[in-house]
Amino acid sequence: MSAPRTGCEILCIGTELLLGNILNSNARWIAEELARLGLPHFRQTVVGDNPERLRDAVLEAAGRSRVLICTGGLGPTPDDLTTETLAATFQVPLQHRAEVMADITAKLQSRGRPMAAGTEKQALLPQGADVLPNPTGTAAGMIWTPQPDFTVLTFPGVPSEMRAMWHQSAAPWLQQQGLARGTFRSRLLRFWGIGESTLAEQVAPYLESRNPTVAPYAGLGEVKLRITACADDSASADALIAPVERELRTIAGSHCFGADSDSLASVVLCQLRQRNETLAVAESCTGGGVGAALTAVSGSSDVLLGGVIAYANRIKQDLLEVPVDLLEREGAVSQAVAMAMAEGARRRLGSDWAIAVSGIAGPGGGTPTKPVGLVHLAVAGPEGCTSLERRYGDSRGRDWIRGLSVGDALNLLRLQLI
Amino acid sequence: MSAPRTGCEILCIGTELLLGNILNSNARWIAEELARLGLPHFRQTVVGDNPERLRDAVLEAAGRSRVLICTGGLGPTPDDLTTETLAATFQVPLQHRAEVMADITAKLQSRGRPMAAGTEKQALLPQGADVLPNPTGTAAGMIWTPQPDFTVLTFPGVPSEMRAMWHQSAAPWLQQQGLARGTFRSRLLRFWGIGESTLAEQVAPYLESRNPTVAPYAGLGEVKLRITACADDSASADALIAPVERELRTIAGSHCFGADSDSLASVVLCQLRQRNETLAVAESCTGGGVGAALTAVSGSSDVLLGGVIAYANRIKQDLLEVPVDLLEREGAVSQAVAMAMAEGARRRLGSDWAIAVSGIAGPGGGTPTKPVGLVHLAVAGPEGCTSLERRYGDSRGRDWIRGLSVGDALNLLRLQLI
Repeated sequence: MSAPRTGCEILCIGTELLLGNILNSNARWIAEELARLGLPHFRQTVVGDNPERLRDAVLEAAGRSRVLICTGGLGPTPDDLTTETLAATFQVPLQHRAEVMADITAKLQSRGRPMAAGTEKQALLPQGADVLPNPTGTAAGMIWTPQPDFTVLTFPGVPSEMRAMWHQSAAPWLQQQGLARGTFRSRLLRFWGIGESTLAEQVAPYLESRNPTVAPYAGLGEVKLRITACADDSASADALIAPVERELRTIAGSHCFGADSDSLASVVLCQLRQRNETLAVAESCTGGGVGAALTAVSGSSDVLLGGVIAYANRIKQDLLEVPVDLLEREGAVSQAVAMAMAEGARRRLGSDWAIAVSGIAGPGGGTPTKPVGLVHLAVAGPEGCTSLERRYGDSRGRDWIRGLSVGDALNLLRLQLI
Repeated sequence: MSAPRTGCEILCIGTELLLGNILNSNARWIAEELARLGLPHFRQTVVGDNPERLRDAVLEAAGRSRVLICTGGLGPTPDDLTTETLAATFQVPLQHRAEVMADITAKLQSRGRPMAAGTEKQALLPQGADVLPNPTGTAAGMIWTPQPDFTVLTFPGVPSEMRAMWHQSAAPWLQQQGLARGTFRSRLLRFWGIGESTLAEQVAPYLESRNPTVAPYAGLGEVKLRITACADDSASADALIAPVERELRTIAGSHCFGADSDSLASVVLCQLRQRNETLAVAESCTGGGVGAALTAVSGSSDVLLGGVIAYANRIKQDLLEVPVDLLEREGAVSQAVAMAMAEGARRRLGSDWAIAVSGIAGPGGGTPTKPVGLVHLAVAGPEGCTSLERRYGDSRGRDWIRGLSVGDALNLLRLQLI
């Protein structure tokens, strides 16, 4: 082939992937980022921590692709052998990099961690390779072009470190290489309270469209539509997206809660901040999950006052003032108790709004009338209390029930605040 | 090479994987099953719905492996081209299989589904291929040996169908081929409070061992060692693992908190259950994360009474009885306040033990003396209160600081209970 090569591929290195110990979430994440950058990507490979098989995989990639993105094997232990194997594959000597060593030393010192054997190895990179800095961890990566028209990027396997390095250094570098087929822009619309197939049916004509494309994804309760457009420049691509986004939002109505990095928690916090109002939570089966979702958003402290995790009934009485006769008559998992929890939290914490959750997350504790998966949600506010009963069923397990409860509780408040 | 080939590899076919739309959970599942069967497995590959690239990947596999396990591309739509591409790769004609067609027709009829265009295609298999029946869906797979010492197994991409076919037909077939290198067993030891490189240094000789092998993995604060042994049967493999596990536990001491599916939360709950004692939490910067981790464990309600999410200082005063002058003098993020929170939670919720967390998760709110990443942890119990100051730094962000705080808080209690 005489045309210049443009394709990328992904090589994930780690015996734990071959043993099925962990899901390859890095390959998926990088694939999504490459699509966002408009970079064609034709293959993903996984090999174990084995120098011969790693070398074979690298040489195959060097024969067909322009960019190879590697993850894993950059740690200090003996089975971390990505860098040395890459150097050996292209017969280039390793070099000690003082700036990498200084960075590792500073990070270990600031965390009060000793310098372990093997750390020195992490400062070795092939001659001619550029450092791909790791802003958060000690394993630096590299951007290395060992032969014309073939560049290797290396990342550690720890997802948070890989992602930070990607955003800070790798993505800007990739964008400058002129490998993209046009400029791609995308917009992710986020939906709650509607199933993937129902939403797909409602927006069916858009799913056939070519530019922009519209693709649905489903997660835990949340459904997403990704609108992706390709054009000569960002502004033209955005101009293709805007009318489609407007039409999709009109079709979906209040089911669409946000876009891109929004979460139900960030949207609710934003709604309350604009009203200058405060929030408290009262959680039974979610056990702190609603609070954790809200406080995951930085700056949540100007809206969220706090909450009560009322797992035992006595805590519902003592800290949330739920009447004991109500608990005895209706049971802890009931509309009346969820509403009393929300009102009690609002009163005791002195907030404008309160969210309450009480349910049966299972696997034990279900009865014929109150089965596993039954959850009562309530929102108390300045003008009274609203409640919602959900029956999630028991087939998908405890985490699923708790995750949907957190989302539905936040969504119930969001709809009150619209 | 004259030795008979024994290796397996996995090829997942689907453009949605290259676009990052879905996680490759099939590769992980099959990898785990292969390890369970004792079948060596050295590579995983993903290609899109593209006949040339699929052919290249198949030919490469045919040159190095004994068995190729393919998933995806068996449906009725035009982009489902796995079977026809495999046949074309080995230049073998496709044959209509009446028994497959009859099965498809019966399944569609029983579900009241019409026969869609493309369904006929699903009854075509290469000459000489055996049907790999699909007990639940319409997409049959095959077991085909197109050349000596190379067999291809095909499965649809839908996980539930692939798994049913695996258990019913593929796993028994694979077991009969005499490819297994004995039976593999593994044990995952879990550690907290020690870095991956420090632990690796302490157990260095074991990382060189061949049977069992010992491999380290690092996550968010947690470090793991996987011990994997191969022997003629499960009992012999377990007997190889047991002494190594004992020695590793002795070396690591109290840093080893559990094995396999244990979590810090499940271990702490178990310790308290054995003592017949109860627990409460008081959370500031984790905002419910400690409670959520504990209640993620089913059956936690017999130990965990509940807790207070005390995000605002007023909640620390009102619900946890932290003295206002202490808050003013020491600040909310201080050893004294964390201890007062733990003691207040223990008193107010009437528990035997209480965990408290107060810190600065950032990105805002840091000062020179109290930087982002500073967290004070406390555990109050029947014999008094213990505290721990941690400085996580600000480089890894809010989620990391909160996640480590949850783990360190649970670990502080675990160490008290040993």
